[in-house]
Amino acid sequence: MKYIEGGVTAAKGFQASSAAAGIKYQGRTDMAMIYSEVPCVAAGTFTTNIVKAAPVKWDRQVVCESDYAQAVVCNSGIANACTGVQGMAYCRETAAKAAEVLGIAENTVLVASTGVIGMQLKMDRIAAGIDMLVPALDGGIEAGHQAARAIMTTDTVPKEVAVTFEIGGRTVTVGGMCKGSGMIHPNMCTMLGFITTDACITKELLQDALSEDIKDTYNMVSVDGDTSTNDTVLLLANGQAGNVVIDSKNEDYQAFCEALHAVNAALCKKIAGDGEGASALFEVKIIGAATKAQAVTLSKSVVTSSLVKTAICGHDANWGRILCAMGYSGAEFDPEKVDLFFESAAGRIQIMKDGIAADYSEEEATRILSEPEVTAIADIKMGSEEATAWGCDLTYDYIKINADYRS
Amino acid sequence: MKYIEGGVTAAKGFQASSAAAGIKYQGRTDMAMIYSEVPCVAAGTFTTNIVKAAPVKWDRQVVCESDYAQAVVCNSGIANACTGVQGMAYCRETAAKAAEVLGIAENTVLVASTGVIGMQLKMDRIAAGIDMLVPALDGGIEAGHQAARAIMTTDTVPKEVAVTFEIGGRTVTVGGMCKGSGMIHPNMCTMLGFITTDACITKELLQDALSEDIKDTYNMVSVDGDTSTNDTVLLLANGQAGNVVIDSKNEDYQAFCEALHAVNAALCKKIAGDGEGASALFEVKIIGAATKAQAVTLSKSVVTSSLVKTAICGHDANWGRILCAMGYSGAEFDPEKVDLFFESAAGRIQIMKDGIAADYSEEEATRILSEPEVTAIADIKMGSEEATAWGCDLTYDYIKINADYRS
Repeated sequence: MKYIEGGVTAAKGFQASSAAAGIKYQGRTDMAMIYSEVPCVAAGTFTTNIVKAAPVKWDRQVVCESDYAQAVVCNSGIANACTGVQGMAYCRETAAKAAEVLGIAENTVLVASTGVIGMQLKMDRIAAGIDMLVPALDGGIEAGHQAARAIMTTDTVPKEVAVTFEIGGRTVTVGGMCKGSGMIHPNMCTMLGFITTDACITKELLQDALSEDIKDTYNMVSVDGDTSTNDTVLLLANGQAGNVVIDSKNEDYQAFCEALHAVNAALCKKIAGDGEGASALFEVKIIGAATKAQAVTLSKSVVTSSLVKTAICGHDANWGRILCAMGYSGAEFDPEKVDLFFESAAGRIQIMKDGIAADYSEEEATRILSEPEVTAIADIKMGSEEATAWGCDLTYDYIKINADYRS
Repeated sequence: MKYIEGGVTAAKGFQASSAAAGIKYQGRTDMAMIYSEVPCVAAGTFTTNIVKAAPVKWDRQVVCESDYAQAVVCNSGIANACTGVQGMAYCRETAAKAAEVLGIAENTVLVASTGVIGMQLKMDRIAAGIDMLVPALDGGIEAGHQAARAIMTTDTVPKEVAVTFEIGGRTVTVGGMCKGSGMIHPNMCTMLGFITTDACITKELLQDALSEDIKDTYNMVSVDGDTSTNDTVLLLANGQAGNVVIDSKNEDYQAFCEALHAVNAALCKKIAGDGEGASALFEVKIIGAATKAQAVTLSKSVVTSSLVKTAICGHDANWGRILCAMGYSGAEFDPEKVDLFFESAAGRIQIMKDGIAADYSEEEATRILSEPEVTAIADIKMGSEEATAWGCDLTYDYIKINADYRS
């Protein structure tokens, strides 16, 4: 497997475009389109929030009921959530308009929105945006870059990744882009992620691969503990790599899953590191767990704790807060057996041994915690299962961004 | 029932004192003692965090196994949590020292600590502190005020309240003090709360009254979602009011429970309003719920959401975040039936009707949200149960306080 440049247009036969449609933001692009030259099998995972945005409901229907999908229309600025019957009607109108201009069926067009909850979309601007998007479609890497920019809200950097691997001598590509910075605590998947691949694979196995992988990727990311109304990950496979179709969970399927995981994990670290106001990516690894579920519960509790996150912001090795967050997580363990380490590019240090302070240098700990990527590793010595969660520090800028987001 | 001045020394026969023992802070008091002239029946509720501080373990033993308690020794600055065998030994030494100086039994002395996790207490300073505390004991209101100051950590104001009511012509008093500002998301009770009463009541009913009341008071407070290792509420009853003993769940018991609730609820609002960095008390009321549990889950989810809390900080009526937090709470409801209101001393406004935006003025909403006490009320129209949770806004100062708490 090899990392290559690009994102959603890296796989054969996928095109993208972007446009400034004036949905809400001024002076920037705010709509993106992904288009496959041939129909794709599609998989999707969606928010578990009871309050589901209209595009989530629309896409679930397309993924479950249509045999194929061929395009995605995405806007930033307005989430089209809590918009009632009108909001659903706008999803259908968006899909119908794109279908008409692209010359494909309405039920093969996926839609996605991100931004403020509760506002209605301006349909005339969406329609005008689609008229701009279709002629701009381009299979180049730059078109993918621009699409990744157009879907940003409070994100500070676009998020893309692509890999290639081989199946029977054929090169298969998996690439993706995503956005997400605040209201990030996916419980199914992150806000918006779009993965494309030219692999030839059945729809059923495509969904299996995605559903399995999000447990270790998107569902392990938390910026602020708020599970969005719009969380969506879409995975489109158009078969253009020409590999023998993957229709059983054989070696080829494993290779595809590995590539998919590499793309998803890389996108997740980009989301966590670009969390609203974040100055550091914060990784929490629980090792020595009795069960996977226990490791997941503990790592997510630590990565979500406001007190742990502010300590990371202050480069402060305040390990008591980490043990505290493990303690209230709901998972059982023996606090008096826990070893704790901090690790970064600047080194590794043991902070706690058997539940009490180890003999360590605060200076060295602070040096290690001052890097832009920091990992806390807790060994609970109960077995061999482990889990990794990704988050970020909690800073002044998080407050600044969110205290008056709408204005 | 009548509110009166004072706190832990308001009830007959209770004394308090404070001292500057140099535990961690400089130039301020950091130890407090509560003493009853006669033995008390004692009730307690403690953190559910698996990582329990040594004083929590000690107190649970005293409350469960001793017939009476007569004194409480409390220090701020160091939490005596994650301190292993040594930490437990220090609890016993503290109780033994206080027992010796006071001339009472070791197993009638409760201890409590709050502050940094993982540091060991300096026993010589604790012992010297006790030598100062005992001769300073005083039943006056001022002694209670000073004790409430000595137990503060990042609290900005001391927190006390007292009420009186009548049982068969006898005046009974319930008074209390508490501390708590950060690491506040009690799941049993808040960090440290001390309630004293001169009611004559059996130990069993005292515990029942406390255990029942914390569900609607301390367990409904959240500053930052972090359940502390030290959460403790102690309730001491010395019988000095001379009322006929309360030994069944009769009218007198109800009157006592009402007074206890008034004290606990008032202390909880003080904790939430003085949350670390808070500029506003934020109250969330869910009405029209089918069950109490549903109302509790929904109100706690909203009051804990970082995105809702930052919106309150910005006086921003960003109601989508409230519905979003209700949606991921785990409680079932129909988003399309929800009505939402904001209320404060400046008025009341309907923001949402049947799940979508009501026709309201953003200016008026901002005016209402600019008060120091703000309430959000969501009617989910499923029944007649309700619950209220208390929290605060999330501000720059929360980050400032916590990014480098230990230095």
